[in-house]
Amino acid sequence: MDYHEPLPVSAERFAELREYFETRSFRGREYEHLPDYRSDLNRGVVLIEDTVVDGFPKIPRTLVIETGVPRHFEEELAVEEKLDGFNVRVARVGDDSADEPLAFTRSGIVCPFTTYQARELLPVAEFFADHPDLMLCGEMVGPENPYTDHEYADVDSLDFRVFDVRDRETGGSVPVRERRDLCADYDIPQVPFHGVFTPEEAVEKLPGIVEELDAGGREGVVMKTLSVDQQLKYTTSAANQGNLEYAFSLPFDYGQAFMFRRLIREAFQSVEWDEDERARRERAHELGEAILCSMTDTIERIDGGATVGERHTVRAPPEIVDELFEHFRSMGLQLEIETDEREAGERVVTFTKKTQATNDKVRAYLDGQIVRE
Amino acid sequence: MDYHEPLPVSAERFAELREYFETRSFRGREYEHLPDYRSDLNRGVVLIEDTVVDGFPKIPRTLVIETGVPRHFEEELAVEEKLDGFNVRVARVGDDSADEPLAFTRSGIVCPFTTYQARELLPVAEFFADHPDLMLCGEMVGPENPYTDHEYADVDSLDFRVFDVRDRETGGSVPVRERRDLCADYDIPQVPFHGVFTPEEAVEKLPGIVEELDAGGREGVVMKTLSVDQQLKYTTSAANQGNLEYAFSLPFDYGQAFMFRRLIREAFQSVEWDEDERARRERAHELGEAILCSMTDTIERIDGGATVGERHTVRAPPEIVDELFEHFRSMGLQLEIETDEREAGERVVTFTKKTQATNDKVRAYLDGQIVRE
Repeated sequence: MDYHEPLPVSAERFAELREYFETRSFRGREYEHLPDYRSDLNRGVVLIEDTVVDGFPKIPRTLVIETGVPRHFEEELAVEEKLDGFNVRVARVGDDSADEPLAFTRSGIVCPFTTYQARELLPVAEFFADHPDLMLCGEMVGPENPYTDHEYADVDSLDFRVFDVRDRETGGSVPVRERRDLCADYDIPQVPFHGVFTPEEAVEKLPGIVEELDAGGREGVVMKTLSVDQQLKYTTSAANQGNLEYAFSLPFDYGQAFMFRRLIREAFQSVEWDEDERARRERAHELGEAILCSMTDTIERIDGGATVGERHTVRAPPEIVDELFEHFRSMGLQLEIETDEREAGERVVTFTKKTQATNDKVRAYLDGQIVRE
Repeated sequence: MDYHEPLPVSAERFAELREYFETRSFRGREYEHLPDYRSDLNRGVVLIEDTVVDGFPKIPRTLVIETGVPRHFEEELAVEEKLDGFNVRVARVGDDSADEPLAFTRSGIVCPFTTYQARELLPVAEFFADHPDLMLCGEMVGPENPYTDHEYADVDSLDFRVFDVRDRETGGSVPVRERRDLCADYDIPQVPFHGVFTPEEAVEKLPGIVEELDAGGREGVVMKTLSVDQQLKYTTSAANQGNLEYAFSLPFDYGQAFMFRRLIREAFQSVEWDEDERARRERAHELGEAILCSMTDTIERIDGGATVGERHTVRAPPEIVDELFEHFRSMGLQLEIETDEREAGERVVTFTKKTQATNDKVRAYLDGQIVRE
């Protein structure tokens, strides 16, 4: 098959880009995926057997609602909540549907844990029997997963929330209203919907929506035209500061650009919200604590002999947990198991992905290693 | 002349490094300088006429006094104050002493303003008549200069404080005690001296010295063996936070690494000082304000139509100010003159070096330009 056909690139360009794909396998099925964005292709494009699975596009962001929204939308836009979990695409790929569908992470890796959960949480047999060419794009949310740790009051372990349904090969979206209906027909849970607005209405409504989400510790919103050909995101201070707190707890493992961008967002939001001196100082104090106290906690833990890392809990049948850990080890991750228990036939494991740079550098600086900068 | 001879590199290696030198001229005298660090050579090495002027070495830093000091010093060390100004080397270079000495900035550029001031502030005729091969290395401090703006209570306009005297070509230092005496003999002002300590004594004394400097809003200390073959620096929270406040007022013009390093220093200091929760939160709040409020000020100023940049004031004879501005323009800097007055035959000019990235990016984001990240 000519993999380039559904993709927005020529055969020649695709041949050039092919070298950036990495080869992996899942249960004996080999596939290639594109782990980073390249000029013409989405990150996470997958080539597997006879199928292309398009990557999920990067959604641009505005730092200022009042100017950014009317600048990027000429027509009506839907506002949906942006949830804080990990981006997953669920799609059938082979002709043989015996071991289908698969769940792909953002970078296009088939995750055995997520694949298991997607099949458990979604009516995949019915949906894909009717719509074999579509893929369900959504956020896996909840505390028990191997990638993120944001809590939602209505999710005990893990849940899937669809925010887009696309043609798996071309990436063409089902329009917002049709997608909301389609998912409702199959009882597939979706991200919360805040309505459809003109750009001017959105400018008026969004600050209130964002403030309410912020007060609930939630992440933000994604705006999209009803045809989903334009998207734009905006995040809460709770999300910015939560990200900063996490990143600064592992300061040498997170990119400095990651941190810098979130600081910039806070400043633009404070200006757009037209905060008075008291509110601005309060935001500054919370920001300072998110930065400093997470670093000092980490330094003190390492000083006390502990190892720091990204801590996660997963709950699944024993063989799925085994498969997940084998998957991580094959990717070179160093895991430390903290607790490993059985509950109702499932394994519940809390583990840490060791973050080498923070452990090594903090230890070295504590030991008096000089800094040449 | 073989320029490589006094330098710690072979003729072959020097020939390779030569391409990184840039050529400039000062009052018709052409010279080459090395604007960045290269593996074997100091940043700021100058080749002029028959003379090499060595660059000033980068001084390594410790993040933790208790372990860093004994690890890097086996013998006695002198503690001197690190002043917050700009690093200058003053040296004779030609055989014709009519237009000597010259003052070189850190990257090896001859600055006409600094050269004028060095000749005014220092007994250069006497000193270089007796010691033609030495260079005076020090900090230009005070509010009236074109590079930095830190205030010192005892400096109205500008002053020079020596912290090292070196062979201009080989960079070999006059030992600390001899240098203090030598400068005293010529009434050349030096950086404040805090004493000579064993490493163990230094670990005990330094926290108190640093805290006192911090309370006075001063920058920090440089420790050095008496022979000056080992140096180590450590800075106050006042300096870290002052730097952050300044950098975040021009967030897109300062490197993210610059900001990150100062955040890390604050965290290690808070841990080493063993701060209780109240003290740590206070440090965090000050840090948050240094970051957020300087950004919001800048965004609001640009939103109000102003241009931001690095603001400086200089005071010198009119022809020196002309020469300085011509020098900056030849380097591609965009200057905006704010005030330009005469006082006692001198010109006093307040001007801004325009920082393009911050002005452009903040304006664009205020206008709703999307961020793809």
